[in-house]
Amino acid sequence: MLINRHTRTVEWGDCDPAGIVFYPRYFAYFDDATGRLFAAAGFPKYDMVQRFNSVGIPMVDTRSKFYIPSRYGEEIVIESRVTEFRRSSFDVHHRILKGEALAVEGFETRVWVCADEEKPGGIKAQPIPEEILTAFTVAA
Amino acid sequence: MLINRHTRTVEWGDCDPAGIVFYPRYFAYFDDATGRLFAAAGFPKYDMVQRFNSVGIPMVDTRSKFYIPSRYGEEIVIESRVTEFRRSSFDVHHRILKGEALAVEGFETRVWVCADEEKPGGIKAQPIPEEILTAFTVAA
Amino acid sequence: MLINRHTRTVEWGDCDPAGIVFYPRYFAYFDDATGRLFAAAGFPKYDMVQRFNSVGIPMVDTRSKFYIPSRYGEEIVIESRVTEFRRSSFDVHHRILKGEALAVEGFETRVWVCADEEKPGGIKAQPIPEEILTAFTVAA
Amino acid sequence: MLINRHTRTVEWGDCDPAGIVFYPRYFAYFDDATGRLFAAAGFPKYDMVQRFNSVGIPMVDTRSKFYIPSRYGEEIVIESRVTEFRRSSFDVHHRILKGEALAVEGFETRVWVCADEEKPGGIKAQPIPEEILTAFTVAA
Repeated sequence: MLINRHTRTVEWGDCDPAGIVFYPRYFAYFDDATGRLFAAAGFPKYDMVQRFNSVGIPMVDTRSKFYIPSRYGEEIVIESRVTEFRRSSFDVHHRILKGEALAVEGFETRVWVCADEEKPGGIKAQPIPEEILTAFTVAA
Repeated sequence: MLINRHTRTVEWGDCDPAGIVFYPRYFAYFDDATGRLFAAAGFPKYDMVQRFNSVGIPMVDTRSKFYIPSRYGEEIVIESRVTEFRRSSFDVHHRILKGEALAVEGFETRVWVCADEEKPGGIKAQPIPEEILTAFTVAA
Repeated sequence: MLINRHTRTVEWGDCDPAGIVFYPRYFAYFDDATGRLFAAAGFPKYDMVQRFNSVGIPMVDTRSKFYIPSRYGEEIVIESRVTEFRRSSFDVHHRILKGEALAVEGFETRVWVCADEEKPGGIKAQPIPEEILTAFTVAA
Repeated sequence: MLINRHTRTVEWGDCDPAGIVFYPRYFAYFDDATGRLFAAAGFPKYDMVQRFNSVGIPMVDTRSKFYIPSRYGEEIVIESRVTEFRRSSFDVHHRILKGEALAVEGFETRVWVCADEEKPGGIKAQPIPEEILTAFTVAA
């Protein structure tokens, strides 16, 4: 499976009075990282929306575990991969690394949702397109 | 002119490693305060959008001055008023009070923008509706 | 066990281009809700820090499940309780309600951490003080 | 005077239901840009704090003008420079560029503040150190 890595520097405004990243910001980091992972597979978010009449890949369940705090100005590496594709949902795993050390882990379950053509304004889960599955596998 | 006051408690996640409100958060406080001011005048944001075919009241110029910092858990009062209505733009003034003391001031210039019926997808500045002007004045 | 409920209105700046709450913001809502829960038990965050030489109650593991999206201007109720106290860690459960419907659930595991008196600048997990346990139980 | 430029990609979570950057986020972008400008001059924020017994460079007055909105996934260039150093305060000017076009401008007045040695816990404005002035000028 395709793995995407990118580097990010912790900003002053990401940190709280304890001087460390305010943990909800890690979920924003991970949301961005999933966008980058799909872009790396050839599917930038807005393209997906148009190409597949999709309404995005909303989150249904997410979890994060915090092992080592990070502070303003520190560089972290975020490593992201899909761990499982199911019919219309999939799991993403993110690891935040500081040097060799695993600092934070993130887990996401998202669904593939499209406009419901039988119900104006409605949406429904749809099978994940073959092209997406292929792009993630071939990329491996 | 109508004045709206509301109270807000500073959250941990609003504050930075210096232990005080991260100043960009004050602009979010003010954006919310302008929404509350219009709601107090009888025009909640989403109603406006539908009633007037408006696309919102985007910001073109905003400024803030910081006199006294605020910390986690402190209660602040935000006092908001329109200081001038022009043909298609208007100014809002916000004051953040801690007890009697003026802690922060915010200044906004926003425009009244509607869908451009001659250009699909386009927008253009429009005269602010009479009903809005009346609501703010009568409320005084 | 003590249950705390409070109401919160979704702000424009909490929402994303899909028009719904950007899910990392729910974690900020929950962090604030845990602060309010402890305050309701008689222990506002800053008091705790001073009274117990604590350095806060850092998060080690958090999860959220999303059932119903929320939009700008909607009122939500957040209901929070500790579900288990262990020696030096504890679990918090949050439920976001829209009317009768359960919209979002949040789960937190936090630890009770104090300054390490044998290691300047260091910290270590400590037993949760008896007073805290009592306050949460009696409040029931 | 030293000019610093860096590129930043607009994140999904930076945008609001209108699909454009929620303007308070620009102030967070600018705060980060000022940190990068000082780092480019040889003074990363935390170093400054230690080297000069400073407590940071708090904002006293900031303003922004918005000409062109930006959307999720767009790359912007932020160009930052100090426009004036006074005895203990200084002005920063930021320009956000999309290609050749000026999209947003930001203006900041910050002060150089140090611990007040005569008043424990107090702070006071101090002359900006010669080394800082030199670094910004020589860099030109």
